[in-house]
Amino acid sequence: MPTLAIDVMSGDLGAPECVPGALLALGQASDLHLELVGNPATIEPLLAPASAALRARVSIVPASDVVPMDELPRAAIRHRKASSMRIAIDRVKAGAALGCVSAGNTGALTAIAHFVLKTVPHVERAPIMSALPAAHGFAYMLDLGANITATAEQLRQFALMGSIVARDVFGIAEPRVGLLNVGSEDIKGHQTVQAANALIAGSAVRYLGFIEGDDIFSGKVDVVVTDGFTGNVALKSMEGLARLITGRMRTEFMRSTASRIAALFARPVLKRVGATLDPRQYNGACMVGLRGVVVKSHGRADRTAFALAIALARTAAIHDIPGCVAKALGSNSAEQGT
Amino acid sequence: MPTLAIDVMSGDLGAPECVPGALLALGQASDLHLELVGNPATIEPLLAPASAALRARVSIVPASDVVPMDELPRAAIRHRKASSMRIAIDRVKAGAALGCVSAGNTGALTAIAHFVLKTVPHVERAPIMSALPAAHGFAYMLDLGANITATAEQLRQFALMGSIVARDVFGIAEPRVGLLNVGSEDIKGHQTVQAANALIAGSAVRYLGFIEGDDIFSGKVDVVVTDGFTGNVALKSMEGLARLITGRMRTEFMRSTASRIAALFARPVLKRVGATLDPRQYNGACMVGLRGVVVKSHGRADRTAFALAIALARTAAIHDIPGCVAKALGSNSAEQGT
Repeated sequence: MPTLAIDVMSGDLGAPECVPGALLALGQASDLHLELVGNPATIEPLLAPASAALRARVSIVPASDVVPMDELPRAAIRHRKASSMRIAIDRVKAGAALGCVSAGNTGALTAIAHFVLKTVPHVERAPIMSALPAAHGFAYMLDLGANITATAEQLRQFALMGSIVARDVFGIAEPRVGLLNVGSEDIKGHQTVQAANALIAGSAVRYLGFIEGDDIFSGKVDVVVTDGFTGNVALKSMEGLARLITGRMRTEFMRSTASRIAALFARPVLKRVGATLDPRQYNGACMVGLRGVVVKSHGRADRTAFALAIALARTAAIHDIPGCVAKALGSNSAEQGT
Repeated sequence: MPTLAIDVMSGDLGAPECVPGALLALGQASDLHLELVGNPATIEPLLAPASAALRARVSIVPASDVVPMDELPRAAIRHRKASSMRIAIDRVKAGAALGCVSAGNTGALTAIAHFVLKTVPHVERAPIMSALPAAHGFAYMLDLGANITATAEQLRQFALMGSIVARDVFGIAEPRVGLLNVGSEDIKGHQTVQAANALIAGSAVRYLGFIEGDDIFSGKVDVVVTDGFTGNVALKSMEGLARLITGRMRTEFMRSTASRIAALFARPVLKRVGATLDPRQYNGACMVGLRGVVVKSHGRADRTAFALAIALARTAAIHDIPGCVAKALGSNSAEQGT
């Protein structure tokens, strides 16, 4: 019966979506217990729709403060000790919860999670990993922005951790790993990716070598490894392009009477396409490599999406991802004699 | 009457598309003269459809070799002196042509163009710049992959050069410039983008500061500045996502009789959407900062797209982009006392 600590006060939508999201997640997993961290006066009324059975698996952990969405990471560590985000992470540190979920400020969450939980032994940096739609279903990319730079060794660790999470959390038997580069030939790219290529090739992962940006979606690999700068820019670029395409479709379908009629016919089909690409369908980014499960929900997540992030944290907790990472990185380092 | 040297032997489709593309470009600009570089025996028959007037503005410059698409840049410099790509660039160097166009191997073209033409004084690196569809029309992004890394000073130069090309080649009166980063707050990002932010803010461009990946498409800026690694990954990611969306739409519209009927109605509208996003509509990437105009066409460009790349080179030649860049970078360096 995993217990998770849920920061229900953060994100763009806050408690009115996060609390119902938590109830949805409880309804979908009968073994789950949730600690809702935040202002009890805000949370309590939002629990009214819950059945007694569901309510019995909820406890409220009071927190008087919230980390603002624009707070600097360092300031968040120093000044937000009473925040719902910090207390949710503290509950993991204290062993009261196996993991936590927050839709809050990514920079603050990354900084506080690192500061409070620390990384697993041998793990230098904890990357953020998330699903992206791909031809064969999903690809899982890391680092999406927790760390702005990454050394070759850190990229090797991302490959190992990504492989573990893809297997245990996302259920891919033997995840194929690719390293993002500007070309797929072995000679391409800067020193860091060149060195990482050699390191990963010598690691216990199913490594397919360099891939290019379009391979994120082609189905060629299951795990895409890159540094947090490139990963974040690529992720945001895709979000921007998806919005542009949606906007253009709306404009064109509204242009004339004929196109408005076409829209009536096309709508159900386009909705199905949209649904397969909807980020809410795969909400939840894992912060991998920390001594506890930390899942970041999209800031604009509604209750359905927030419930998915909680379900992800539950799976990660059940599979003891921090333990698996410690084992893999530890044995791997031992093999290399470091 | 600008003369351009056109490598008609390279690219995935080669002479059968490049030569007709050259004829299209000639038909669209009566002041243009083209030197078609390649195998005369291949080119001559493809010129048969041309009118005598058009044919009079074409000359053939023989080249016995072609740079293979997978040739390493250094090998291309050393061993492909008789290639259509090299000879086209040599024509620019010799002053016989104001610019050249090739659909060939990007790495080889970048390397040979740098080696033969050299950069304009004060320009450290010559980036590749291209249009991307955006909410307001297009955004112009550089570097898309000519250089794998970029220092802060090089990013500043990209901002200046990008601003000139956006104005003179793409007709944007006062181009708004943004620097790609993982957040739009001033404190975000690694040392290089931090330093570049300060340098560009002090330059003679209309600088809006940091932008995130989704702003490439939002219409917030006209010129997106980034290093070649990030730029290339972002560009390829978008191409991959666009292909994924197109594929999903095809699948969903073919799923049932009802959706096939919907497809009949929706097709003209979706075609219009597709047309506004079709990379062939904005084919042609400028290699900016070299002592001559060099335009890279997409490797899979058909004749229509190849003609666009030639038109772009013509505009850049008419506006003397190399001269404008030399003036801007030179005076800018002088102001700074360097």
